[in-house]
Amino acid sequence: MRGKHREIQEKIFDFFNSSPDLQTPTEISMKEHRELCLRQLLGLVREGKIKPFRYVVEDPAKYFAISEAVGSIDISLGIKFGVQYSLWGGSVLNLGTKKHRDKYFDGIDNLDYLGCFAMTELHHGSNVQGLQTVATFDPITDEFIIDTPNDGAIKWWIGNAAVHGKFATVFARLVLPTHDSKGVSDMGVHAFIVPIRDLKTHQPLPGIEINDCGHKIGLNGVDNGALRFRSVRIPRDNLLNRFGDVTRDGKYTSSLPTINKRFAATLGELVGGRVGLAHSSVGILKIAVTIAVRYSLLRQQFGPPKQPEVSILDYQSQQHKLMPMLASTYAFHFATQYLVEKYSEMKKTHDEQLVGDVHALSAGLKSYVTSFTAKSLSTCREACGGHGYAAVNRFGTLRNDHDIFQTFEGDNTVLLQQV
Amino acid sequence: MRGKHREIQEKIFDFFNSSPDLQTPTEISMKEHRELCLRQLLGLVREGKIKPFRYVVEDPAKYFAISEAVGSIDISLGIKFGVQYSLWGGSVLNLGTKKHRDKYFDGIDNLDYLGCFAMTELHHGSNVQGLQTVATFDPITDEFIIDTPNDGAIKWWIGNAAVHGKFATVFARLVLPTHDSKGVSDMGVHAFIVPIRDLKTHQPLPGIEINDCGHKIGLNGVDNGALRFRSVRIPRDNLLNRFGDVTRDGKYTSSLPTINKRFAATLGELVGGRVGLAHSSVGILKIAVTIAVRYSLLRQQFGPPKQPEVSILDYQSQQHKLMPMLASTYAFHFATQYLVEKYSEMKKTHDEQLVGDVHALSAGLKSYVTSFTAKSLSTCREACGGHGYAAVNRFGTLRNDHDIFQTFEGDNTVLLQQV
Repeated sequence: MRGKHREIQEKIFDFFNSSPDLQTPTEISMKEHRELCLRQLLGLVREGKIKPFRYVVEDPAKYFAISEAVGSIDISLGIKFGVQYSLWGGSVLNLGTKKHRDKYFDGIDNLDYLGCFAMTELHHGSNVQGLQTVATFDPITDEFIIDTPNDGAIKWWIGNAAVHGKFATVFARLVLPTHDSKGVSDMGVHAFIVPIRDLKTHQPLPGIEINDCGHKIGLNGVDNGALRFRSVRIPRDNLLNRFGDVTRDGKYTSSLPTINKRFAATLGELVGGRVGLAHSSVGILKIAVTIAVRYSLLRQQFGPPKQPEVSILDYQSQQHKLMPMLASTYAFHFATQYLVEKYSEMKKTHDEQLVGDVHALSAGLKSYVTSFTAKSLSTCREACGGHGYAAVNRFGTLRNDHDIFQTFEGDNTVLLQQV
Repeated sequence: MRGKHREIQEKIFDFFNSSPDLQTPTEISMKEHRELCLRQLLGLVREGKIKPFRYVVEDPAKYFAISEAVGSIDISLGIKFGVQYSLWGGSVLNLGTKKHRDKYFDGIDNLDYLGCFAMTELHHGSNVQGLQTVATFDPITDEFIIDTPNDGAIKWWIGNAAVHGKFATVFARLVLPTHDSKGVSDMGVHAFIVPIRDLKTHQPLPGIEINDCGHKIGLNGVDNGALRFRSVRIPRDNLLNRFGDVTRDGKYTSSLPTINKRFAATLGELVGGRVGLAHSSVGILKIAVTIAVRYSLLRQQFGPPKQPEVSILDYQSQQHKLMPMLASTYAFHFATQYLVEKYSEMKKTHDEQLVGDVHALSAGLKSYVTSFTAKSLSTCREACGGHGYAAVNRFGTLRNDHDIFQTFEGDNTVLLQQV
């Protein structure tokens, strides 16, 4: 089942098996969990010598295999890993150009540049086109000025923002001064690299207000925060300019003709996040089904008079709960493998038909698989009765951590309408 | 909706609203949560002057109304409350006779006698008739000797056992010495009051081995423990002897003719636990639906071009998630009210037809309602998107705490077969 990336997954398991101090305990405060999660990530990269960043673009199948293994250690770690390499790192590689890659690749790779992906706003989740954060070009200083116009536009749920992030890819409306009566022109949502904390002192930079989103149902190893910008100035070069750029004299240039096409191209580059989530969700499903089936084989209850009790897996009601789920797990394994292949091909060829296919397939599989896994985690807990409720048996953390897979990277209800 | 018990529920809410030190914080360790939960219970009874014990038998509707209100403060508190009054206290009142009531009523009522309900064993959950703990009568000393014959017979998940309990109602096979070739006679499962900790020093009593069941997915304010008995001697009077008794010279007496009838009568008295769970589950559903519907009305996302975004409750997909659930909540409210009425009538009349009806109705409603609530808690979280995932919005703790309602007091899959 692990296919050709078995070796690197084993290497990750070996590293964590030999690092008991990096194991997440059953009880841990949010603050400690966040620090442990960072130590796990640093350990993986700096001691475990796993360097996944190059694979984000060059070998996505390998990247997702690493991500699955990392997520099986602690889903918080898997998400923090994904925020760093796929969201923050991926946005630099996929939405930026060579100058960005040259400047940021090593820092992202070796975790000196921990970063965030600041898209969602307090009042704007699914409706990305309705984002209100503004990046106004100042032709005099050759800078963009990032502003949060109202409370609803505060960047919210931003992973790595509350404590650890140094940078953020901020999605904002690009506004250019014009000489007509309106005075400005809104070019739509673009992505900008915004330094949020001082590289040396780690203090928030001027104009950056950072708050903590606090406890979540799960994933408390990830430090989600809120970012508010007050006239934050960044160089023009910090615009991730693959699909649209601004010249020194404030002219907008793009190879794509309309705001909608540019927006679609930008979001299209982020489809890897959905591919990764579908893939990781199947990984979590595998863990849960394995635990539930094994326990059901060993647990005995009731039986014929005067004879030993029978395995609960011998009951049809238990089989009906677990066997179709087990079969679906195999099916989803192969379906997401197929999706990863198509996605890898797309990253190489940029074939337009393939882009459309991967968009539809990833939207459909991400929503279907994550909803299925979420329901299955509950079914597994229930099928294992009281012992399924013991925290040590993992169904609780798996469910709490995985729950939001149904919402982030595209709410399942919304995504299903794109299939 | 609150009906005639609104007043006592308001009194409970007022008490906790005016006791901020008794509020459960978002982050709390298991150890602290257990102590807080005990303080909440002591506060409710000793400062809040809520004395629910008499209502367990005299006015079940009032008892369940108190229980619902208490559970809405913290479900752990609701369960600890139920362990004390309904399970431990209820077993003394319903399975014992006047001598037990006289001896234990006040201590249970005022919480001096915190107690446990020790039925489930590590290897015996649903199959109560397969319990292996043994209570052997010793005619010389006029005592029962309680023994745990093997690891699988250790009493497991026993609420109040890990830290706070002084007594336990222990379910064990009553074994009498005989003069035939077998030497002993197994009279089936009976209930015994076993002191487990010293009333003054709070140390475990001789022969009582207590272990901690550790962290659970939820309900970590309840101290579930494991009890092992090594030749623990208790007076003959500690047999809860309403349905079967042992004379001074070791003869078994009962008004019921067979082991099966006595077992059915014993378990029949415990049906109140299921009635209470169905009732509490609806209470939790009410909280979740209220949060989800209110948020959906206020949250806006997408909308017609150039116009304000629309309330997400205006979307059919959101209505389909929440409106049938809201309607079901009303239906379950009235259904469980009806069940409580029937149960109250049964406790008064002991009418045999009514006993059968309440058994079937409580088995069906407990399983149907708790499964529905469990699924709905997930649906509510999902319908509220990212903000539904914030711990402060309660869906996480409600789901984690409520989850086991589907398993304890009769696994839903097993219960449904009794309808």
